[in-house]
Amino acid sequence: MATPQFKQLRRSYGFDEVAIVPGDVTINPDQTNIDFKVENFTFSIPILAAAMDAVTDVNLAALMSKLGGLAVLNLDGIQTRYDNPQEILSEIAQASDAEVTPLLQKVYSQPIKENLIGERIQSIKKAGAVCAISVVPANTKRFAPIAAEAQADIIVVQSTVTSARHISKSYRGLIFSELRESISMPIIVGNCVSYNACLELMRTGISGVLVGVGPGAACTTREVLGVGVPQITATIDCAAARDAYQQESGRYVPIITDGGIGKGGDLCKAFASGADAVMLGSILAKAKEAPGVGLNWGMAHPHPALPRGTRVKVGTTGTLEQILFGPTSVTDGSQNLVGALRAAMGICGVRNIQEMHKAEMVVAPAITTEGKSWQLSQS
Amino acid sequence: MATPQFKQLRRSYGFDEVAIVPGDVTINPDQTNIDFKVENFTFSIPILAAAMDAVTDVNLAALMSKLGGLAVLNLDGIQTRYDNPQEILSEIAQASDAEVTPLLQKVYSQPIKENLIGERIQSIKKAGAVCAISVVPANTKRFAPIAAEAQADIIVVQSTVTSARHISKSYRGLIFSELRESISMPIIVGNCVSYNACLELMRTGISGVLVGVGPGAACTTREVLGVGVPQITATIDCAAARDAYQQESGRYVPIITDGGIGKGGDLCKAFASGADAVMLGSILAKAKEAPGVGLNWGMAHPHPALPRGTRVKVGTTGTLEQILFGPTSVTDGSQNLVGALRAAMGICGVRNIQEMHKAEMVVAPAITTEGKSWQLSQS
Amino acid sequence: MATPQFKQLRRSYGFDEVAIVPGDVTINPDQTNIDFKVENFTFSIPILAAAMDAVTDVNLAALMSKLGGLAVLNLDGIQTRYDNPQEILSEIAQASDAEVTPLLQKVYSQPIKENLIGERIQSIKKAGAVCAISVVPANTKRFAPIAAEAQADIIVVQSTVTSARHISKSYRGLIFSELRESISMPIIVGNCVSYNACLELMRTGISGVLVGVGPGAACTTREVLGVGVPQITATIDCAAARDAYQQESGRYVPIITDGGIGKGGDLCKAFASGADAVMLGSILAKAKEAPGVGLNWGMAHPHPALPRGTRVKVGTTGTLEQILFGPTSVTDGSQNLVGALRAAMGICGVRNIQEMHKAEMVVAPAITTEGKSWQLSQS
Amino acid sequence: MATPQFKQLRRSYGFDEVAIVPGDVTINPDQTNIDFKVENFTFSIPILAAAMDAVTDVNLAALMSKLGGLAVLNLDGIQTRYDNPQEILSEIAQASDAEVTPLLQKVYSQPIKENLIGERIQSIKKAGAVCAISVVPANTKRFAPIAAEAQADIIVVQSTVTSARHISKSYRGLIFSELRESISMPIIVGNCVSYNACLELMRTGISGVLVGVGPGAACTTREVLGVGVPQITATIDCAAARDAYQQESGRYVPIITDGGIGKGGDLCKAFASGADAVMLGSILAKAKEAPGVGLNWGMAHPHPALPRGTRVKVGTTGTLEQILFGPTSVTDGSQNLVGALRAAMGICGVRNIQEMHKAEMVVAPAITTEGKSWQLSQS
Repeated sequence: MATPQFKQLRRSYGFDEVAIVPGDVTINPDQTNIDFKVENFTFSIPILAAAMDAVTDVNLAALMSKLGGLAVLNLDGIQTRYDNPQEILSEIAQASDAEVTPLLQKVYSQPIKENLIGERIQSIKKAGAVCAISVVPANTKRFAPIAAEAQADIIVVQSTVTSARHISKSYRGLIFSELRESISMPIIVGNCVSYNACLELMRTGISGVLVGVGPGAACTTREVLGVGVPQITATIDCAAARDAYQQESGRYVPIITDGGIGKGGDLCKAFASGADAVMLGSILAKAKEAPGVGLNWGMAHPHPALPRGTRVKVGTTGTLEQILFGPTSVTDGSQNLVGALRAAMGICGVRNIQEMHKAEMVVAPAITTEGKSWQLSQS
Repeated sequence: MATPQFKQLRRSYGFDEVAIVPGDVTINPDQTNIDFKVENFTFSIPILAAAMDAVTDVNLAALMSKLGGLAVLNLDGIQTRYDNPQEILSEIAQASDAEVTPLLQKVYSQPIKENLIGERIQSIKKAGAVCAISVVPANTKRFAPIAAEAQADIIVVQSTVTSARHISKSYRGLIFSELRESISMPIIVGNCVSYNACLELMRTGISGVLVGVGPGAACTTREVLGVGVPQITATIDCAAARDAYQQESGRYVPIITDGGIGKGGDLCKAFASGADAVMLGSILAKAKEAPGVGLNWGMAHPHPALPRGTRVKVGTTGTLEQILFGPTSVTDGSQNLVGALRAAMGICGVRNIQEMHKAEMVVAPAITTEGKSWQLSQS
Repeated sequence: MATPQFKQLRRSYGFDEVAIVPGDVTINPDQTNIDFKVENFTFSIPILAAAMDAVTDVNLAALMSKLGGLAVLNLDGIQTRYDNPQEILSEIAQASDAEVTPLLQKVYSQPIKENLIGERIQSIKKAGAVCAISVVPANTKRFAPIAAEAQADIIVVQSTVTSARHISKSYRGLIFSELRESISMPIIVGNCVSYNACLELMRTGISGVLVGVGPGAACTTREVLGVGVPQITATIDCAAARDAYQQESGRYVPIITDGGIGKGGDLCKAFASGADAVMLGSILAKAKEAPGVGLNWGMAHPHPALPRGTRVKVGTTGTLEQILFGPTSVTDGSQNLVGALRAAMGICGVRNIQEMHKAEMVVAPAITTEGKSWQLSQS
Repeated sequence: MATPQFKQLRRSYGFDEVAIVPGDVTINPDQTNIDFKVENFTFSIPILAAAMDAVTDVNLAALMSKLGGLAVLNLDGIQTRYDNPQEILSEIAQASDAEVTPLLQKVYSQPIKENLIGERIQSIKKAGAVCAISVVPANTKRFAPIAAEAQADIIVVQSTVTSARHISKSYRGLIFSELRESISMPIIVGNCVSYNACLELMRTGISGVLVGVGPGAACTTREVLGVGVPQITATIDCAAARDAYQQESGRYVPIITDGGIGKGGDLCKAFASGADAVMLGSILAKAKEAPGVGLNWGMAHPHPALPRGTRVKVGTTGTLEQILFGPTSVTDGSQNLVGALRAAMGICGVRNIQEMHKAEMVVAPAITTEGKSWQLSQS
């Protein structure tokens, strides 16, 4: 009898399961460089605000750019469906837990007004900010030219999972190499989580890849679809694809870890796993300037037939500047994210993000099972 | 001194420990085919309703068939012991937690009325439905001819564990190859969880195998007997047996993952592990049309000397159609299971269930430890 | 530079982490033989009641023998320190949680009355029971002759950890080969958890080994000393020692898994790991006939300087007969332990305990993370 | 195509994940020797009190020395910033949870009074105690001569992570070989967690290394920075470095496991992992004589821009002597730590700490998942 052939499963890891090992050398945090580059754009901090309606609006995008990062405005959300988004955001904030999913489904079923796309982009540009906008693949061919005309700087094509080859009979799939030729701005595409998928996307000529399926706090994709890869492994795999692609093409395409980063420690681990930048949702929704007023919800939540998400109460804990740069009296890692990154890099003895990619990591038990057990026996 | 020989233990996995990796290609969900075949029967959805008294009665069987699936009526339960099952079901629903096990033991100690077997089957057939019934091995020789005469379509021979070779001195064991010759309908047998046991069952000529020992929400077999294999590993192993059997015989015998599927994500993972169909209990007991009125209990629960089960409050959350096809405003994965399966297949870029068997999976930490930890620090 | 030499750690397993795989053959439970032999004694069930003061007194010992098992009376406990143990047991039962450890320390600091040793043994013998008694190694040379004279049948020499070679300057260590020559009854020694320690004990000529350090519900040895090996691994290792010793000597020395068995499933897993018998504490303390009246505490708990234990409320749930043989309406695996063992053996298709040693086991996630997660999302 | 190169992660272990295996030989606890040596100093117990303001002040340092151990006074904390530390400690004790971090930040922003350094050291010396003090690397060149002049015995140079090579542009990094030549007392340096970093530190000629980053109960470095290695692995790795360094140099430099030890079991495991001594924080803050009056906080907690810590309520449970030597009626492992260590060494059959380094350990599930599950089903 032949040996049975069983399907093999690879072990994967999430933020809570790993830790960064200090280096043999240490360095003062003020000597670290954390620049992030996408084609000709250079950002002084490697942090993007997510294209979520509770996180990014025109004001937050302007502020984020001023602070050195980049916010992405969602062109398929409330900002382009409603002349007065504020009204709708208040309504969502006031809905009860039982009411909120049907309400979101209704809110997001209103048509997108094409005129608002241009208006929002121009408002961001007028504030002197770099303007990044996001569209779902199915709307890209229609909205990309409008965004280009309004002089958006960077386009993000994003859905739960986006591949270089999509099969559909209802419409001709989006071809990224064609899109790239038709518009001149950098294209960031996401999300993906595996080596091959990432490599194929990079080969279409795009400018950046968003990494992450299922990990976000406001997302229930793993519960509903069973799909997802924990972020440490997803980032490690896509970083390997980036490095392989650089070897074959000479072109360095940055990867952005998107989703599941809830505290400074997670952010530092993303970089140690290979991220060039991170995209933050719920942790930035805590900012006073965030449109969600202390709440957050995922962009798959309003799906009409298969909603995947939770409205999360994140609270309003400080200004965006405090969350990014401190100073702070909060000790749970949710503020002074940039300070945390520089401190971790100092401990690892690395001078820039690419050196941080080489920091050693270990698989470690979740924090709650290490050394803190006696506290429980106290109560 | 010789090297000590220690017993070796293989690692096994359950639903909560794995996740599906998106494919390199994606596909529109409306282009997926999810047909399920058992001999000459083709079902448009690969979902069976379990032979549990809180899940399947005549009405639900008719409805399930109409919706494209298959429900299995338990011939050893309340439906064939009582002329008026409704009465008994109400009594169970009203019993307190302390009373319910003795009550179930009493209820199931009443004799089976053979005349009711025919009546129930004919009611299902009259509704135009495909009629599947289940019997325990010890009753099979007696009830199979009655079921055949009443024109049942499919017979399921089911107990906690059923093997091709059973040793008993009190009765001559059921021989599946003999049963197959004596009745003309397809025979599905279960449950089993390992490669060899599954292969041996298939070699007897049966038409399908139920996979799963111990995982169900209403089952305490692992607590009481220590026996059970988590469903991902059980499905992977039995799928390998199915493929090996097809190679040796040319015959494709489908396997049906039965038990422990509590949400859409679990269901999708069962198919990615190799299942041809799934059998659902507690998740369908939530349907308005389910006889359990918001409760469920396992068929090993009423055992007179060694009851193994829990009466679970599942609640009544929607119609059977909504649970299977949506639309829904529920975001925990308990509704629109078919939509979830098609969406997951789209993300994996697979066109049918057999391609889904090849989707990559990773071992991943349970959802609660990934990215959601900061929520806890919020409260 | 030489490669660094890091200390290696072997993975070990406890009851909750493994599960038994059903066999390729099944067998009717009534055809299983579960006899347990120690030298010339044969017991019809392979279950020992622990030498704990809340579990075994004269009455329970008599009853246990009548039911086919064996209870071990602790000669270093309350029964031999007090003429009227009932009084003391009530006092312990009525003490508050804060008072109980100092009270136990006081209670167990009273001297042992040698006359009571003989009396207790004779009472057990008078009831027609097999009489097993336990002593700590330091008291063995003094008490063994008294027990022998009173015609005890089996002597158990037990402490947290007992080795074949003990180094002490205050007294000459107990030499088991000498003890064996001085008394004619079978000697069971414990506890141990590793291959070498078990093998060395067997080579001294003793008749049985108790396996288990740290796992009991009423024990905090792992918290206080950091010492212990989970029971599945401990049993597997000692079973390998037993088999190796049988090969070298021709003599089969049974091993008894002692501690941590909280339900039928654990008991079945102990046998599948290689146990010839099990010793039960807290689960038998639930019997109406147990002296602990619904409580249990470990024999290291009253230690004057370093108490290691918890007084556990186990409740009184049924008669000893019900706990061992059912019938029951309890579904958590705490009653009908013998029925559970026979049922598991039937599912594994094995006819006796030695065949059960060969049942396949898998490492499986704890029950609570398998399939039951959706229940939580219900509440 | 080349095989993708994925970043590899090594598995690491914390206290809760391992257990010590009893030896083949056992020994009476009173025959164990637990001396700890740093250069010419010999301590009769291998326990250091941490340089935390809630743990060590002048009085506790004197008492600790008298009891055979060593306490380290923090020269960068409250004792050297305030003439009357008592006042400040009371203020911290009375602050609410919301107020405490800003208060600590304010308290620790006051300048250090150099005259107090000498005063505190002299008070300790006057009490006849061995005097150890700690300084952060940036203050070492300034404070070390003052401490030397005041006749401190041992200097500890300590920060979250200290390496042999620190890169800074604002000040010339501390060179340990230079420091060693400039002062005559033994230098202990920390913290570090990896083989190479530890080896490099030893090669500078220092006298001892503190092991541990992130594990302490009052520390949130892993949440905030993502940095840390669980203590068992950290200790094993640094012990390998110590042994390698001894081979290359002939010099034995002890390592001290610092942080995360919450009970006797953890302490014993630290020694079995290779520690020569342990440094205790929160567990000693429970002493009646500790300055923290039932509270503890980490020395990274008052950081002005990036506070990392929690104020932990540890309670006041006994005298320092009771915590170290018992006797006790506490059964959770938080008292009689020396008794626990000697008992564990007895069970392992080892005579001294260096033999304890060779005790076998296994990876074992956390205590809560072993054998105690049935208790849960009781409630």
